[in-house]
Amino acid sequence: MAAISINVSTVKPLGDRVFVKVSEAEEKTAGGIYLPDNAKEKPQVGEVVTVGEGKVNDKGERTPVEVKVGDKVLYSKYAGTDIKLGGDDYVLLSEKDILAVVS
Amino acid sequence: MAAISINVSTVKPLGDRVFVKVSEAEEKTAGGIYLPDNAKEKPQVGEVVTVGEGKVNDKGERTPVEVKVGDKVLYSKYAGTDIKLGGDDYVLLSEKDILAVVS
Amino acid sequence: MAAISINVSTVKPLGDRVFVKVSEAEEKTAGGIYLPDNAKEKPQVGEVVTVGEGKVNDKGERTPVEVKVGDKVLYSKYAGTDIKLGGDDYVLLSEKDILAVVS
Amino acid sequence: MAAISINVSTVKPLGDRVFVKVSEAEEKTAGGIYLPDNAKEKPQVGEVVTVGEGKVNDKGERTPVEVKVGDKVLYSKYAGTDIKLGGDDYVLLSEKDILAVVS
Amino acid sequence: MAAISINVSTVKPLGDRVFVKVSEAEEKTAGGIYLPDNAKEKPQVGEVVTVGEGKVNDKGERTPVEVKVGDKVLYSKYAGTDIKLGGDDYVLLSEKDILAVVS
Amino acid sequence: MAAISINVSTVKPLGDRVFVKVSEAEEKTAGGIYLPDNAKEKPQVGEVVTVGEGKVNDKGERTPVEVKVGDKVLYSKYAGTDIKLGGDDYVLLSEKDILAVVS
Amino acid sequence: MAAISINVSTVKPLGDRVFVKVSEAEEKTAGGIYLPDNAKEKPQVGEVVTVGEGKVNDKGERTPVEVKVGDKVLYSKYAGTDIKLGGDDYVLLSEKDILAVVS
Repeated sequence: MAAISINVSTVKPLGDRVFVKVSEAEEKTAGGIYLPDNAKEKPQVGEVVTVGEGKVNDKGERTPVEVKVGDKVLYSKYAGTDIKLGGDDYVLLSEKDILAVVS
Repeated sequence: MAAISINVSTVKPLGDRVFVKVSEAEEKTAGGIYLPDNAKEKPQVGEVVTVGEGKVNDKGERTPVEVKVGDKVLYSKYAGTDIKLGGDDYVLLSEKDILAVVS
Repeated sequence: MAAISINVSTVKPLGDRVFVKVSEAEEKTAGGIYLPDNAKEKPQVGEVVTVGEGKVNDKGERTPVEVKVGDKVLYSKYAGTDIKLGGDDYVLLSEKDILAVVS
Repeated sequence: MAAISINVSTVKPLGDRVFVKVSEAEEKTAGGIYLPDNAKEKPQVGEVVTVGEGKVNDKGERTPVEVKVGDKVLYSKYAGTDIKLGGDDYVLLSEKDILAVVS
Repeated sequence: MAAISINVSTVKPLGDRVFVKVSEAEEKTAGGIYLPDNAKEKPQVGEVVTVGEGKVNDKGERTPVEVKVGDKVLYSKYAGTDIKLGGDDYVLLSEKDILAVVS
Repeated sequence: MAAISINVSTVKPLGDRVFVKVSEAEEKTAGGIYLPDNAKEKPQVGEVVTVGEGKVNDKGERTPVEVKVGDKVLYSKYAGTDIKLGGDDYVLLSEKDILAVVS
Repeated sequence: MAAISINVSTVKPLGDRVFVKVSEAEEKTAGGIYLPDNAKEKPQVGEVVTVGEGKVNDKGERTPVEVKVGDKVLYSKYAGTDIKLGGDDYVLLSEKDILAVVS
């Protein structure tokens, strides 16, 4: 049985899916805003690596995904499918599971 | 792995989501209207910080969100995703989870 | 953290929601119609205080709410979100949870 | 707190709801058709008292309710909201819970 | 409280509902096709007595029911509402619960 | 109560339903492809006997069923309604429960 | 009862279904990207063998499937129907269960 190797740069999400690299939340000790400690246990922040071409509506037209490559995003804690590639954590999300873009 | 810091002013909710700063209910001892004590345990009142551009309907058009920045809102007790930033409590809500604008 | 005070007259329900003041059922001992005793335990009758502008349909048009301010309404026992303001009981209902207008 | 009295003649169901007076099934000992004994425990037969104006469809038009005042109807055993008024049993049903008009 | 008597010939199903007289499966000892013994315990075969005018679609038009009076039908074992009238078994089915017309 | 006999050739499925004769999986000891032993316990392969005229869409038009009489089909293990006629096993499936045609 | 033999090359998925040959994840000890060990227990990677003609929308038109024969795909761990043919593992997936095309 032939094996398939997965390369991050070649992952092309389908439909309204978004491929996101999971980020660790930065803790700032002075000033600024930070994610609380307990957010580290299951990160909810990431950076968009690739996006799908969008969902097809009833007219056969695609609705483009609202986020773009490079966007930092907040996403639902329990959403999507976790994928570990080369030691890094990724997640394949539906656009609806992305809550907000955080620049 | 690169870390992402989140700044309240840069949070841009997607779709029909609304970014809300959770308020503590004010207790007035004289006259006026107030939220009962038990409402403090899990606040249901907040102020809109930013709003998404609205949901895309079947025609590919966006329906604008009904609330605007600065609105005080009542929202469902168990709705949305809680986020703690810089010691303050925020919640990312779908517009449908907002029950009413108050004052 | 700033507090928000809620005034009944400023509550503006969103979408097809309706803000209702809960009524106690009147018991008449002679003639007339009355709600049975057990209906008192969890009132299902109220008076409309304010109404939302209606739901947006797929064409981006609002469907006006069928009830109006001042209407006495019967509503589902377990529907909506209960709110206590100034010692009185209110409920925020979706229009679909209102069963009928009474007199 | 003001009380509200409910008068059967003033109940106006919303949407596709139908206000039905619950009937007791008649038992005929000779000839004819009758409902079996066990149907008495939870009546499924009633007479339409008032009807709503019908549901609003996606085009903003109302679809009139298929039954009319005075119709005898068969309805689902566990459907609707039971209301007791003046010693009589009523039920507020969605049109979809009405199975058939009888006679 | 007035009683209502139900006559089979006057039952008029609503929407896409179909009024069906339950049949006992015939057992043939020679040749032919027959329903197995265990099918007798809960009949799945019946004859259409009356049909509704069909469901209303989003355009306000009725889609006629696919079966007609007199059709022998196979229906889902657990579908519909059983009604016993004059010693006979009837069932009120949604058209979608009718699997096939037989013979 | 009149009995109804069912003849395979007269079964006419409604809507998008498909009447399928269940097949036993063939085991080949040499070369070729075969279904594993455990597939015999609950067959998932069959031959289409008759098909419905297709589902009616919102425009009142029928969408023809994608399979045709004589097609060998793979179907979901737990889908449909099993029917035993004359010693043979049949199943009434919705088209959506048919996974693939296997020539 | 006639038996049906299944040949991989003749499997034609219906609707938006996709017939996928399950791949074993390749483990690279040096450089490159690889799937972690625990991904081997239930593979989520495969190669598209055949695709259906796409789902029919409300207008009676087919929306073509977004993947094509030969595509390497990532799919949901618990999606689809597993089929073992000739010693190899296959899976029949709905297009919506395919998360991404890889390489």
